Amino acid sequence: MSTIRLKDIATTAPKGFKKEAVKKKTEAILNDLNELQNLLYAEAKNSLLIVIQGMDAAGKDGLTRDVFTSMNPQGVNVKPFKEPTLEELSHDFLWRIHKDAPAKGMIQVFNRSHYEDVLVTRVHGMTDDKTAYKRMEVINDFEKLLTEHNNTTILKFYLHVSHEEQLKRLEARIDDPRKMWKYNVKDFEESKLWDRYRKYYEEVFHHCNHVPWHIIPADQNWYKSYLVAQEIQKTLKDFKMRYPGMKK
Amino acid sequence: MSTIRLKDIATTAPKGFKKEAVKKKTEAILNDLNELQNLLYAEAKNSLLIVIQGMDAAGKDGLTRDVFTSMNPQGVNVKPFKEPTLEELSHDFLWRIHKDAPAKGMIQVFNRSHYEDVLVTRVHGMTDDKTAYKRMEVINDFEKLLTEHNNTTILKFYLHVSHEEQLKRLEARIDDPRKMWKYNVKDFEESKLWDRYRKYYEEVFHHCNHVPWHIIPADQNWYKSYLVAQEIQKTLKDFKMRYPGMKK
Repeated sequence: MSTIRLKDIATTAPKGFKKEAVKKKTEAILNDLNELQNLLYAEAKNSLLIVIQGMDAAGKDGLTRDVFTSMNPQGVNVKPFKEPTLEELSHDFLWRIHKDAPAKGMIQVFNRSHYEDVLVTRVHGMTDDKTAYKRMEVINDFEKLLTEHNNTTILKFYLHVSHEEQLKRLEARIDDPRKMWKYNVKDFEESKLWDRYRKYYEEVFHHCNHVPWHIIPADQNWYKSYLVAQEIQKTLKDFKMRYPGMKK
Repeated sequence: MSTIRLKDIATTAPKGFKKEAVKKKTEAILNDLNELQNLLYAEAKNSLLIVIQGMDAAGKDGLTRDVFTSMNPQGVNVKPFKEPTLEELSHDFLWRIHKDAPAKGMIQVFNRSHYEDVLVTRVHGMTDDKTAYKRMEVINDFEKLLTEHNNTTILKFYLHVSHEEQLKRLEARIDDPRKMWKYNVKDFEESKLWDRYRKYYEEVFHHCNHVPWHIIPADQNWYKSYLVAQEIQKTLKDFKMRYPGMKK
Protein backbone atom coordinates (compact mmCIF):
# COMPACT_ATOMS: atom_id res chain seq x y z
CA MET A 1 0.00 0.00 0.00
CA SER A 2 1.32 3.39 -0.92
CA THR A 3 0.85 6.48 1.11
CA ILE A 4 0.65 9.56 -1.04
CA ARG A 5 0.50 12.98 0.62
CA LEU A 6 -0.45 15.50 -2.00
CA LYS A 7 0.83 18.45 -0.01
CA ASP A 8 4.34 16.98 -0.15
CA ILE A 9 4.30 16.69 -3.94
CA ALA A 10 5.19 19.62 -6.19
CA THR A 11 2.58 20.90 -8.64
CA THR A 12 5.21 22.33 -10.98
CA ALA A 13 8.08 21.00 -13.06
CA PRO A 14 11.42 20.49 -11.30
CA LYS A 15 14.11 23.04 -12.00
CA GLY A 16 15.85 22.59 -15.30
CA PHE A 17 12.78 21.82 -17.39
CA LYS A 18 12.36 24.53 -20.02
CA LYS A 19 8.97 24.99 -21.64
CA GLU A 20 10.09 25.21 -25.26
CA ALA A 21 12.46 22.25 -25.03
CA VAL A 22 9.84 20.11 -23.31
CA LYS A 23 7.23 21.02 -25.92
CA LYS A 24 9.58 19.83 -28.66
CA LYS A 25 10.11 16.56 -26.86
CA THR A 26 6.37 16.13 -26.45
CA GLU A 27 5.87 16.68 -30.15
CA ALA A 28 8.32 13.90 -30.95
CA ILE A 29 6.57 11.58 -28.51
CA LEU A 30 3.18 12.34 -30.06
CA ASN A 31 4.53 11.48 -33.49
CA ASP A 32 5.69 8.18 -32.12
CA LEU A 33 2.35 7.60 -30.37
CA ASN A 34 0.52 7.99 -33.66
CA GLU A 35 2.45 5.03 -35.04
CA LEU A 36 2.19 2.98 -31.83
CA GLN A 37 -1.57 3.48 -31.72
CA ASN A 38 -1.88 2.30 -35.30
CA LEU A 39 0.03 -0.82 -34.37
CA LEU A 40 -2.13 -1.40 -31.29
CA TYR A 41 -5.24 -1.21 -33.47
CA ALA A 42 -3.79 -3.46 -36.15
CA GLU A 43 -2.63 -6.10 -33.72
CA ALA A 44 -5.87 -5.98 -31.69
CA LYS A 45 -4.31 -7.96 -28.86
CA ASN A 46 -3.90 -5.39 -26.07
CA SER A 47 -5.96 -2.42 -25.02
CA LEU A 48 -5.30 0.69 -23.02
CA LEU A 49 -7.56 2.40 -20.50
CA ILE A 50 -6.51 5.86 -19.43
CA VAL A 51 -8.22 7.26 -16.36
CA ILE A 52 -7.92 11.02 -15.89
CA GLN A 53 -8.91 12.47 -12.54
CA GLY A 54 -8.33 15.83 -10.95
CA MET A 55 -10.06 18.80 -9.38
CA ASP A 56 -12.10 21.23 -11.46
CA ALA A 57 -9.84 23.20 -13.81
CA ALA A 58 -6.97 20.75 -13.28
CA GLY A 59 -6.73 20.53 -17.07
CA LYS A 60 -8.45 17.22 -17.85
CA ASP A 61 -10.06 18.45 -21.08
CA GLY A 62 -6.86 20.15 -22.16
CA LEU A 63 -4.84 17.01 -21.57
CA THR A 64 -7.28 14.99 -23.66
CA ARG A 65 -6.98 17.51 -26.45
CA ASP A 66 -3.19 17.81 -26.29
CA VAL A 67 -2.29 14.15 -26.11
CA PHE A 68 -5.00 12.32 -28.03
CA THR A 69 -5.71 14.70 -30.89
CA SER A 70 -2.67 13.35 -32.68
CA MET A 71 -4.06 9.83 -32.86
CA ASN A 72 -6.46 8.30 -35.36
CA PRO A 73 -9.89 8.78 -33.75
CA GLN A 74 -11.03 5.41 -35.07
CA GLY A 75 -8.80 3.78 -32.47
CA VAL A 76 -9.36 6.23 -29.62
CA ASN A 77 -12.55 6.84 -27.67
CA VAL A 78 -12.96 9.54 -25.08
CA LYS A 79 -15.74 9.23 -22.55
CA PRO A 80 -16.42 12.15 -20.23
CA PHE A 81 -18.35 10.89 -17.21
CA LYS A 82 -20.84 13.42 -15.90
CA GLU A 83 -23.55 13.26 -13.27
CA PRO A 84 -25.22 9.85 -13.70
CA THR A 85 -28.54 9.70 -15.52
CA LEU A 86 -31.65 8.17 -13.93
CA GLU A 87 -31.07 4.97 -15.90
CA GLU A 88 -27.45 4.80 -14.77
CA LEU A 89 -28.46 5.38 -11.16
CA SER A 90 -30.84 2.44 -11.35
CA HIS A 91 -27.82 0.15 -11.86
CA ASP A 92 -24.69 -0.54 -9.82
CA PHE A 93 -22.12 2.24 -10.12
CA LEU A 94 -19.82 0.26 -12.41
CA TRP A 95 -22.52 -0.58 -14.96
CA ARG A 96 -22.08 2.56 -17.02
CA ILE A 97 -18.31 2.33 -16.69
CA HIS A 98 -18.07 -1.25 -17.91
CA LYS A 99 -19.97 -0.42 -21.10
CA ASP A 100 -17.10 1.85 -22.16
CA ALA A 101 -14.23 -0.46 -21.27
CA PRO A 102 -11.86 -0.67 -24.25
CA ALA A 103 -12.12 -3.43 -26.83
CA LYS A 104 -8.87 -5.11 -27.84
CA GLY A 105 -6.86 -2.78 -30.04
CA MET A 106 -8.46 0.36 -28.63
CA ILE A 107 -7.38 3.25 -26.46
CA GLN A 108 -10.16 4.39 -24.16
CA VAL A 109 -9.88 7.64 -22.25
CA PHE A 110 -12.05 8.26 -19.20
CA ASN A 111 -12.37 11.97 -18.43
CA ARG A 112 -13.44 11.45 -14.82
CA SER A 113 -14.40 7.87 -14.04
CA HIS A 114 -15.71 5.32 -11.55
CA TYR A 115 -13.59 7.13 -8.96
CA GLU A 116 -16.14 9.94 -8.81
CA ASP A 117 -18.33 7.50 -6.90
CA VAL A 118 -15.88 7.53 -4.01
CA LEU A 119 -14.97 11.21 -4.33
CA VAL A 120 -17.68 13.74 -5.13
CA THR A 121 -20.29 11.52 -3.47
CA ARG A 122 -18.25 11.39 -0.25
CA VAL A 123 -17.47 15.10 -0.25
CA HIS A 124 -21.19 15.82 -0.41
CA GLY A 125 -22.20 13.18 2.09
CA MET A 126 -24.12 11.08 -0.44
CA THR A 127 -22.00 8.03 0.38
CA ASP A 128 -21.03 6.95 3.88
CA ASP A 129 -17.56 5.64 4.72
CA LYS A 130 -18.61 2.01 4.89
CA THR A 131 -20.11 2.10 1.41
CA ALA A 132 -17.09 3.96 0.11
CA TYR A 133 -14.65 1.35 1.38
CA LYS A 134 -16.75 -1.44 -0.12
CA ARG A 135 -16.83 0.39 -3.42
CA MET A 136 -13.08 0.76 -3.42
CA GLU A 137 -12.72 -3.01 -3.03
CA VAL A 138 -15.11 -3.55 -5.90
CA ILE A 139 -13.15 -1.07 -8.01
CA ASN A 140 -9.99 -3.10 -7.40
CA ASP A 141 -11.77 -6.26 -8.50
CA PHE A 142 -13.13 -4.51 -11.56
CA GLU A 143 -9.73 -3.22 -12.62
CA LYS A 144 -8.33 -6.71 -12.13
CA LEU A 145 -11.06 -8.12 -14.36
CA LEU A 146 -10.11 -5.78 -17.19
CA THR A 147 -6.41 -6.30 -16.70
CA GLU A 148 -6.41 -10.06 -16.44
CA HIS A 149 -9.28 -10.96 -18.71
CA ASN A 150 -8.99 -8.53 -21.62
CA ASN A 151 -5.29 -7.61 -21.78
CA THR A 152 -6.21 -4.11 -20.70
CA THR A 153 -3.45 -1.98 -19.28
CA ILE A 154 -4.84 0.75 -17.06
CA LEU A 155 -3.00 4.04 -16.61
CA LYS A 156 -4.41 6.25 -13.86
CA PHE A 157 -3.43 9.93 -13.80
CA TYR A 158 -4.20 12.41 -11.07
CA LEU A 159 -3.68 15.94 -12.37
CA HIS A 160 -2.16 17.69 -9.41
CA VAL A 161 -2.79 21.45 -9.36
CA SER A 162 -2.36 23.84 -6.49
CA HIS A 163 -5.43 25.51 -5.03
CA GLU A 164 -4.04 28.91 -6.07
CA GLU A 165 -3.66 27.78 -9.67
CA GLN A 166 -7.17 26.35 -9.67
CA LEU A 167 -8.69 29.62 -8.47
CA LYS A 168 -6.63 31.59 -10.98
CA ARG A 169 -7.94 29.41 -13.80
CA LEU A 170 -11.55 29.53 -12.66
CA GLU A 171 -11.40 33.31 -12.45
CA ALA A 172 -9.61 33.79 -15.75
CA ARG A 173 -12.21 31.70 -17.49
CA ILE A 174 -15.12 33.82 -16.40
CA ASP A 175 -13.71 36.51 -18.65
CA ASP A 176 -12.96 34.28 -21.63
CA PRO A 177 -15.96 33.89 -23.94
CA ARG A 178 -14.36 30.75 -25.42
CA LYS A 179 -14.26 29.07 -22.02
CA MET A 180 -17.08 30.66 -20.09
CA TRP A 181 -19.55 27.89 -21.00
CA LYS A 182 -17.55 25.33 -19.05
CA TYR A 183 -17.87 27.06 -15.72
CA ASN A 184 -20.68 27.89 -13.42
CA VAL A 185 -21.06 29.53 -10.08
CA LYS A 186 -21.08 26.13 -8.39
CA ASP A 187 -17.41 25.68 -9.29
CA PHE A 188 -16.38 28.25 -6.72
CA GLU A 189 -18.50 26.55 -4.07
CA GLU A 190 -16.81 23.24 -4.93
CA SER A 191 -13.43 24.91 -4.71
CA LYS A 192 -14.09 25.68 -1.05
CA LEU A 193 -14.29 21.94 -0.41
CA TRP A 194 -10.64 21.57 -1.50
CA ASP A 195 -9.40 19.91 1.69
CA ARG A 196 -12.19 17.38 1.76
CA TYR A 197 -11.52 16.41 -1.87
CA ARG A 198 -7.83 16.04 -1.10
CA LYS A 199 -8.50 13.80 1.85
CA TYR A 200 -10.72 11.48 -0.14
CA TYR A 201 -8.33 11.47 -3.07
CA GLU A 202 -5.56 10.35 -0.75
CA GLU A 203 -7.76 7.51 0.47
CA VAL A 204 -8.33 6.47 -3.12
CA PHE A 205 -4.59 6.47 -3.82
CA HIS A 206 -4.11 4.33 -0.75
CA HIS A 207 -6.88 1.78 -1.20
CA CYS A 208 -7.02 1.57 -4.99
CA ASN A 209 -3.37 1.13 -5.70
CA HIS A 210 -3.57 -2.35 -7.22
CA VAL A 211 -3.11 -0.41 -10.43
CA PRO A 212 -0.83 2.44 -9.36
CA TRP A 213 -1.66 6.13 -9.63
CA HIS A 214 0.54 8.60 -11.44
CA ILE A 215 0.52 11.95 -9.69
CA ILE A 216 1.15 14.52 -12.41
CA PRO A 217 2.29 18.04 -11.48
CA ALA A 218 -0.27 20.02 -13.45
CA ASP A 219 0.17 23.73 -12.79
CA GLN A 220 1.99 23.94 -16.15
CA ASN A 221 0.09 22.37 -19.01
CA TRP A 222 3.21 21.76 -21.10
CA TYR A 223 4.81 19.69 -18.34
CA LYS A 224 1.63 17.77 -17.59
CA SER A 225 1.08 16.75 -21.23
CA TYR A 226 4.73 15.76 -21.55
CA LEU A 227 4.63 13.41 -18.56
CA VAL A 228 1.40 11.75 -19.62
CA ALA A 229 2.47 11.33 -23.25
CA GLN A 230 5.74 9.85 -22.09
CA GLU A 231 4.00 7.35 -19.83
CA ILE A 232 1.69 6.21 -22.61
CA GLN A 233 4.62 5.85 -24.99
CA LYS A 234 6.50 3.72 -22.50
CA THR A 235 3.47 1.52 -21.89
CA LEU A 236 2.75 0.94 -25.57
CA LYS A 237 6.40 0.19 -26.32
CA ASP A 238 6.40 -2.44 -23.58
CA PHE A 239 3.67 -4.33 -25.45
CA LYS A 240 6.32 -5.28 -28.03
CA MET A 241 3.76 -5.25 -30.79
CA ARG A 242 4.09 -6.41 -34.40
CA TYR A 243 1.90 -5.97 -37.43
CA PRO A 244 0.00 -9.20 -38.00
CA GLY A 245 -0.09 -10.88 -41.38
CA MET A 246 -3.09 -11.24 -43.64
CA LYS A 247 -6.37 -12.50 -42.27
CA LYS A 248 -7.06 -16.11 -43.11
CA MET B 1 -34.85 12.25 -57.38
CA SER B 2 -31.32 12.38 -58.66
CA THR B 3 -29.83 10.01 -61.14
CA ILE B 4 -26.16 9.46 -60.55
CA ARG B 5 -24.15 7.38 -63.02
CA LEU B 6 -20.81 6.60 -61.49
CA LYS B 7 -19.16 5.78 -64.80
CA ASP B 8 -19.80 9.35 -65.97
CA ILE B 9 -18.08 10.87 -62.94
CA ALA B 10 -14.32 11.34 -62.78
CA THR B 11 -12.37 9.58 -60.05
CA THR B 12 -9.53 12.12 -60.17
CA ALA B 13 -9.14 15.84 -59.56
CA PRO B 14 -9.98 18.18 -62.44
CA LYS B 15 -7.06 19.73 -64.30
CA GLY B 16 -5.44 22.61 -62.50
CA PHE B 17 -5.47 21.11 -59.01
CA LYS B 18 -1.90 20.71 -57.80
CA LYS B 19 -1.18 18.29 -54.97
CA GLU B 20 1.05 20.54 -52.88
CA ALA B 21 -1.19 23.57 -53.18
CA VAL B 22 -4.29 21.55 -52.31
CA LYS B 23 -2.56 20.00 -49.30
CA LYS B 24 -1.78 23.48 -47.98
CA LYS B 25 -5.39 24.51 -48.40
CA THR B 26 -6.53 21.38 -46.59
CA GLU B 27 -4.21 22.16 -43.70
CA ALA B 28 -5.74 25.59 -43.34
CA ILE B 29 -9.23 24.10 -43.41
CA LEU B 30 -8.31 21.54 -40.74
CA ASN B 31 -7.06 24.33 -38.48
CA ASP B 32 -10.36 26.06 -38.90
CA LEU B 33 -12.27 22.80 -38.27
CA ASN B 34 -10.51 22.37 -34.95
CA GLU B 35 -11.98 25.67 -33.78
CA LEU B 36 -15.40 25.02 -35.32
CA GLN B 37 -15.62 21.64 -33.63
CA ASN B 38 -14.79 23.20 -30.27
CA LEU B 39 -17.61 25.67 -30.81
CA LEU B 40 -20.03 22.89 -31.83
CA TYR B 41 -19.21 21.04 -28.60
CA ALA B 42 -19.49 24.15 -26.44
CA GLU B 43 -22.80 25.22 -27.92
CA ALA B 44 -24.25 21.68 -27.83
CA LYS B 45 -27.14 22.68 -30.08
CA ASN B 46 -26.37 20.99 -33.38
CA SER B 47 -24.74 17.69 -34.23
CA LEU B 48 -23.07 16.28 -37.29
CA LEU B 49 -23.29 12.75 -38.67
CA ILE B 50 -20.78 11.88 -41.35
CA VAL B 51 -21.45 8.74 -43.34
CA ILE B 52 -18.51 7.35 -45.29
CA GLN B 53 -19.19 4.68 -47.88
CA GLY B 54 -17.09 3.26 -50.67
CA MET B 55 -15.68 0.06 -52.09
CA ASP B 56 -12.87 -1.80 -50.35
CA ALA B 57 -9.66 0.24 -50.48
CA ALA B 58 -11.53 3.39 -51.46
CA GLY B 59 -9.73 5.12 -48.60
CA LYS B 60 -12.35 5.26 -45.85
CA ASP B 61 -9.89 4.63 -43.01
CA GLY B 62 -7.41 7.07 -44.50
CA LEU B 63 -10.05 9.77 -44.81
CA THR B 64 -11.03 9.30 -41.18
CA ARG B 65 -7.41 9.64 -40.14
CA ASP B 66 -6.65 12.64 -42.37
CA VAL B 67 -9.69 14.74 -41.58
CA PHE B 68 -10.64 13.92 -38.00
CA THR B 69 -7.27 13.47 -36.35
CA SER B 70 -7.01 17.24 -36.07
CA MET B 71 -10.08 17.50 -33.86
CA ASN B 72 -10.44 17.03 -30.11
CA PRO B 73 -11.40 13.36 -29.75
CA GLN B 74 -13.72 14.21 -26.86
CA GLY B 75 -16.10 15.74 -29.41
CA VAL B 76 -15.61 13.22 -32.21
CA ASN B 77 -16.60 9.57 -32.28
CA VAL B 78 -15.75 7.18 -35.07
CA LYS B 79 -17.75 4.01 -35.44
CA PRO B 80 -16.62 1.42 -37.96
CA PHE B 81 -19.52 -0.86 -38.78
CA LYS B 82 -18.46 -4.41 -39.44
CA GLU B 83 -20.36 -7.62 -39.98
CA PRO B 84 -23.28 -7.54 -37.50
CA THR B 85 -22.96 -9.61 -34.32
CA LEU B 86 -25.54 -12.20 -33.34
CA GLU B 87 -27.13 -9.74 -30.93
CA GLU B 88 -27.31 -7.06 -33.60
CA LEU B 89 -28.85 -9.50 -36.06
CA SER B 90 -31.58 -10.29 -33.55
CA HIS B 91 -32.78 -6.67 -33.87
CA ASP B 92 -33.95 -4.55 -36.79
CA PHE B 93 -31.05 -3.34 -38.97
CA LEU B 94 -31.17 0.22 -37.65
CA TRP B 95 -30.97 -0.75 -33.98
CA ARG B 96 -27.19 -0.83 -33.84
CA ILE B 97 -26.98 2.31 -35.96
CA HIS B 98 -29.32 4.36 -33.80
CA LYS B 99 -27.25 3.66 -30.68
CA ASP B 100 -24.36 5.58 -32.24
CA ALA B 101 -26.31 8.56 -33.53
CA PRO B 102 -24.58 11.77 -32.41
CA ALA B 103 -25.61 13.60 -29.26
CA LYS B 104 -25.99 17.35 -29.54
CA GLY B 105 -22.58 18.99 -29.80
CA MET B 106 -20.92 15.89 -31.22
CA ILE B 107 -19.46 14.84 -34.53
CA GLN B 108 -20.12 11.19 -35.28
CA VAL B 109 -18.34 9.44 -38.11
CA PHE B 110 -19.73 6.21 -39.56
CA ASN B 111 -17.06 4.21 -41.38
CA ARG B 112 -19.56 2.15 -43.39
CA SER B 113 -23.11 2.43 -42.12
CA HIS B 114 -26.74 1.38 -42.37
CA TYR B 115 -26.24 1.46 -46.15
CA GLU B 116 -24.35 -1.81 -46.00
CA ASP B 117 -27.73 -3.45 -45.39
CA VAL B 118 -28.84 -2.50 -48.88
CA LEU B 119 -25.43 -3.04 -50.51
CA VAL B 120 -23.32 -5.99 -49.43
CA THR B 121 -26.44 -7.95 -48.51
CA ARG B 122 -27.90 -7.42 -51.99
CA VAL B 123 -24.67 -8.20 -53.80
CA HIS B 124 -24.55 -11.54 -52.00
CA GLY B 125 -28.24 -12.30 -52.39
CA MET B 126 -28.96 -12.15 -48.66
CA THR B 127 -31.63 -9.49 -49.22
CA ASP B 128 -34.22 -9.58 -51.99
CA ASP B 129 -35.22 -6.48 -53.96
CA LYS B 130 -38.52 -6.00 -52.17
CA THR B 131 -36.85 -6.00 -48.76
CA ALA B 132 -34.15 -3.69 -50.05
CA TYR B 133 -36.64 -1.09 -51.31
CA LYS B 134 -38.52 -1.21 -48.02
CA ARG B 135 -35.27 -0.76 -46.15
CA MET B 136 -34.40 2.26 -48.23
CA GLU B 137 -37.70 3.88 -47.30
CA VAL B 138 -37.03 3.18 -43.66
CA ILE B 139 -33.56 4.66 -44.00
CA ASN B 140 -35.08 7.87 -45.35
CA ASP B 141 -37.45 8.02 -42.39
CA PHE B 142 -34.60 7.36 -39.98
CA GLU B 143 -32.45 10.13 -41.44
CA LYS B 144 -35.42 12.46 -41.24
CA LEU B 145 -35.85 11.57 -37.56
CA LEU B 146 -32.27 12.53 -36.77
CA THR B 147 -32.40 15.65 -38.90
CA GLU B 148 -35.70 17.01 -37.66
CA HIS B 149 -35.70 15.81 -34.09
CA ASN B 150 -32.12 16.23 -32.96
CA ASN B 151 -30.69 19.03 -35.12
CA THR B 152 -28.46 16.50 -36.77
CA THR B 153 -26.97 17.45 -40.10
CA ILE B 154 -26.04 14.38 -42.11
CA LEU B 155 -23.24 14.46 -44.66
CA LYS B 156 -23.01 11.38 -46.85
CA PHE B 157 -19.82 10.76 -48.80
CA TYR B 158 -19.28 8.11 -51.42
CA LEU B 159 -15.56 7.67 -52.04
CA HIS B 160 -15.39 7.14 -55.76
CA VAL B 161 -12.35 5.13 -56.89
CA SER B 162 -11.76 3.46 -60.23
CA HIS B 163 -11.60 -0.30 -60.37
CA GLU B 164 -7.99 -0.08 -61.59
CA GLU B 165 -7.01 2.06 -58.60
CA GLN B 166 -8.75 -0.33 -56.22
CA LEU B 167 -6.86 -3.33 -57.59
CA LYS B 168 -3.59 -1.42 -57.48
CA ARG B 169 -4.15 -0.60 -53.83
CA LEU B 170 -5.21 -4.11 -52.86
CA GLU B 171 -2.11 -5.52 -54.53
CA ALA B 172 0.26 -2.95 -53.10
CA ARG B 173 -1.00 -3.67 -49.63
CA ILE B 174 -0.22 -7.35 -49.76
CA ASP B 175 3.43 -6.34 -49.80
CA ASP B 176 3.21 -3.71 -47.08
CA PRO B 177 3.62 -5.24 -43.61
CA ARG B 178 1.99 -2.10 -42.11
CA LYS B 179 -1.17 -2.66 -44.13
CA MET B 180 -1.26 -6.37 -44.73
CA TRP B 181 -3.50 -7.04 -41.70
CA LYS B 182 -6.36 -5.09 -43.26
CA TYR B 183 -6.64 -7.31 -46.27
CA ASN B 184 -7.58 -10.87 -46.90
CA VAL B 185 -8.01 -13.09 -49.89
CA LYS B 186 -11.75 -12.43 -49.87
CA ASP B 187 -11.09 -8.83 -50.93
CA PHE B 188 -10.11 -9.95 -54.40
CA GLU B 189 -13.24 -12.06 -54.68
CA GLU B 190 -15.31 -9.04 -53.66
CA SER B 191 -13.51 -6.92 -56.21
CA LYS B 192 -14.87 -9.16 -58.98
CA LEU B 193 -18.37 -8.12 -57.93
CA TRP B 194 -17.54 -4.51 -58.85
CA ASP B 195 -20.41 -4.03 -61.32
CA ARG B 196 -23.01 -5.42 -58.95
CA TYR B 197 -21.82 -3.10 -56.18
CA ARG B 198 -21.95 -0.14 -58.53
CA LYS B 199 -25.48 -0.96 -59.61
CA TYR B 200 -26.74 -1.18 -56.03
CA TYR B 201 -24.86 1.96 -55.05
CA GLU B 202 -26.58 3.85 -57.85
CA GLU B 203 -29.93 2.63 -56.56
CA VAL B 204 -29.03 3.92 -53.10
CA PHE B 205 -28.11 7.31 -54.53
CA HIS B 206 -31.43 7.39 -56.32
CA HIS B 207 -33.74 6.22 -53.55
CA CYS B 208 -31.96 7.63 -50.51
CA ASN B 209 -31.41 11.15 -51.70
CA HIS B 210 -33.57 12.90 -49.13
CA VAL B 211 -30.21 13.75 -47.63
CA PRO B 212 -28.03 14.16 -50.73
CA TRP B 213 -24.90 12.13 -51.48
CA HIS B 214 -21.55 13.70 -52.18
CA ILE B 215 -19.65 11.72 -54.79
CA ILE B 216 -15.99 12.28 -53.99
CA PRO B 217 -13.34 11.53 -56.62
CA ALA B 218 -11.04 9.36 -54.54
CA ASP B 219 -8.19 8.05 -56.67
CA GLN B 220 -6.00 10.76 -55.14
CA ASN B 221 -6.11 10.85 -51.37
CA TRP B 222 -5.07 14.51 -51.16
CA TYR B 223 -7.97 15.60 -53.33
CA LYS B 224 -10.49 13.40 -51.51
CA SER B 225 -9.53 14.72 -48.07
CA TYR B 226 -9.62 18.29 -49.35
CA LEU B 227 -13.18 17.98 -50.69
CA VAL B 228 -14.50 16.31 -47.57
CA ALA B 229 -12.82 18.75 -45.18
CA GLN B 230 -14.16 21.64 -47.22
CA GLU B 231 -17.71 20.29 -47.11
CA ILE B 232 -17.56 19.84 -43.34
CA GLN B 233 -16.17 23.34 -42.90
CA LYS B 234 -18.99 24.81 -44.99
CA THR B 235 -21.60 22.88 -43.04
CA LEU B 236 -20.28 23.90 -39.62
CA LYS B 237 -19.98 27.54 -40.67
CA ASP B 238 -23.60 27.52 -41.77
CA PHE B 239 -24.64 26.68 -38.21
CA LYS B 240 -23.69 30.26 -37.27
CA MET B 241 -22.61 29.14 -33.82
CA ARG B 242 -21.65 31.24 -30.80
CA TYR B 243 -20.05 30.38 -27.50
CA PRO B 244 -22.77 30.26 -24.85
CA GLY B 245 -22.44 32.14 -21.58
CA MET B 246 -22.01 30.60 -18.14
CA LYS B 247 -24.30 27.83 -17.01
CA LYS B 248 -27.03 28.98 -14.69
